[in-house]
Amino acid sequence: MKICKRCREKEADVVLSTVCFCEPCFIEYFERQVQRAIDGEKLGVQMFSRDSRILMAVSGGKDSMALWNVLNDLGYETCGLHIDLNIDEYSEVSRRVVENFAASKNLDLIVVDLRKEYGKSLMELAMRDACSACGLVKRYLMNKVAYEKGFSVLATGHTLDDECVTLLGNLTRWNLEFLQRQYPILESTHPKLVRKVKPLFRISDEETAAYARIKRLEFVREKCPLASGATSLSYKKVLNELEQRHPSLKKAFYLGFLKNKSLFGKEENFELKTCESCGMPTANVGLCAFCKLLERPKRRHDEKSKVKPLSI
Amino acid sequence: MKICKRCREKEADVVLSTVCFCEPCFIEYFERQVQRAIDGEKLGVQMFSRDSRILMAVSGGKDSMALWNVLNDLGYETCGLHIDLNIDEYSEVSRRVVENFAASKNLDLIVVDLRKEYGKSLMELAMRDACSACGLVKRYLMNKVAYEKGFSVLATGHTLDDECVTLLGNLTRWNLEFLQRQYPILESTHPKLVRKVKPLFRISDEETAAYARIKRLEFVREKCPLASGATSLSYKKVLNELEQRHPSLKKAFYLGFLKNKSLFGKEENFELKTCESCGMPTANVGLCAFCKLLERPKRRHDEKSKVKPLSI
Repeated sequence: MKICKRCREKEADVVLSTVCFCEPCFIEYFERQVQRAIDGEKLGVQMFSRDSRILMAVSGGKDSMALWNVLNDLGYETCGLHIDLNIDEYSEVSRRVVENFAASKNLDLIVVDLRKEYGKSLMELAMRDACSACGLVKRYLMNKVAYEKGFSVLATGHTLDDECVTLLGNLTRWNLEFLQRQYPILESTHPKLVRKVKPLFRISDEETAAYARIKRLEFVREKCPLASGATSLSYKKVLNELEQRHPSLKKAFYLGFLKNKSLFGKEENFELKTCESCGMPTANVGLCAFCKLLERPKRRHDEKSKVKPLSI
Repeated sequence: MKICKRCREKEADVVLSTVCFCEPCFIEYFERQVQRAIDGEKLGVQMFSRDSRILMAVSGGKDSMALWNVLNDLGYETCGLHIDLNIDEYSEVSRRVVENFAASKNLDLIVVDLRKEYGKSLMELAMRDACSACGLVKRYLMNKVAYEKGFSVLATGHTLDDECVTLLGNLTRWNLEFLQRQYPILESTHPKLVRKVKPLFRISDEETAAYARIKRLEFVREKCPLASGATSLSYKKVLNELEQRHPSLKKAFYLGFLKNKSLFGKEENFELKTCESCGMPTANVGLCAFCKLLERPKRRHDEKSKVKPLSI
């Protein structure tokens, strides 16, 4: 029998690669890690306070559901935002999970239905690279809703694992621009861009899974059916292999990066422009990436009808 | 049938993850990559010239045997250095492979036999961590022989894979000091420290294996029996997995690092001291790490004889 390394009394029934706790001690540890992140310990900047208007992005997966639950338990007032991407049954289940949780805890919830609002499902918009279109759509809509509804901060369920995957991808490609920008707090650099924060950056996927189990949270267990070949999965897999061989490697890797981030220089503060169509901030001249995506199926259709038949 | 991507005529019988050549084109490609490294293309500093006195460190494995062969074929005059670590049959076979090659090509060879010279095999010296002791012993002896015999440069068979493993290990741990020092050319920073170069830094293990096969080089196929749990193996494995999913990742990772190396700052030029026992350069005050290692079994023996018997 393993003993909880915190209280040194009860049996440790949460045995993870780096921690070994009894259930009550694990929950205390988990909440404390999230609180430290929110309070900006080591980062030097608070993510939000108890007065902040917090929009919580919830996909229905274990990480965002764990974060929404812990924020609620820690006494923060949040409103959920769920984006229904209309990926068949997967989206239906996800939406139901999120709606059930909001109802059970009496929490506000905003749902944006992609097909209802923009006439297309994610698959109809994406055509080829679903994962990159999904990221784009989510980033755009999360910010738009946060801005239009007057929230001061947008919280996402990105975990230590997610951050490590991004970091390893950026390092193997030496993508300096992205390395400069990667941080648990992304400040607003435009009046229509809302501050983004990742309160789970100290917490691993393994830990959110244990938390969700203990708290009996309902969440979507299936992986997104469109993500089967996603690049990020290969990085996730190798990071898990390294973690198994070298426990705490992920934490050392990401926290070490944060400590040494200044090596990569400061992000250039280039001025964001305004999208000609929707009026939201964009790095592009003309249409923003989201409006371009919306235009794409239409453009493709127009181009197709222009093609001359081959003379035989 | 795949066609050689270089001559676009012959069948490609060398099909690797990133290249696809016929045998003659592969050899040309291989030799050209090594020549580019030696000439210091992109590095801005030549590794050595045709007049340099080159000591070539040869373990008997495929990488060092491939390098020794290609240097010979490219017309460089080299003398081999083999360190016999007395790891049972593994060392016997390694030594025989190296001696056979030297004899067949009429090349000079220096063999340092650890037990004959210092009275101990590697295992007797290492006790616990054989891999780190092996690295220490080799680094020390390679430099000592190179210095004492008046060589201007020491060449080792470190490949792109070896460099990537070191780089990934240094990055996950954010070991800045080692990141500052990692480079295919290590200049002399002390009169008794010989310049070290890695002419295979652009060549993958997969490529040295193909080269060795085509050139029918004899080499030791067995892994060192002491290295089974080595840390480097877990990094090697995950890098191979990433390479398989993202071809050319290793090359992009390492060459990108070399391009961005200045981010990590310059190595501090701290003054090396001289070992009180052997007179070779060392960062330590008193004995160098090699002399300490030689002392260890003796010290342990002395300490053991000092232990008082327990009173019952």
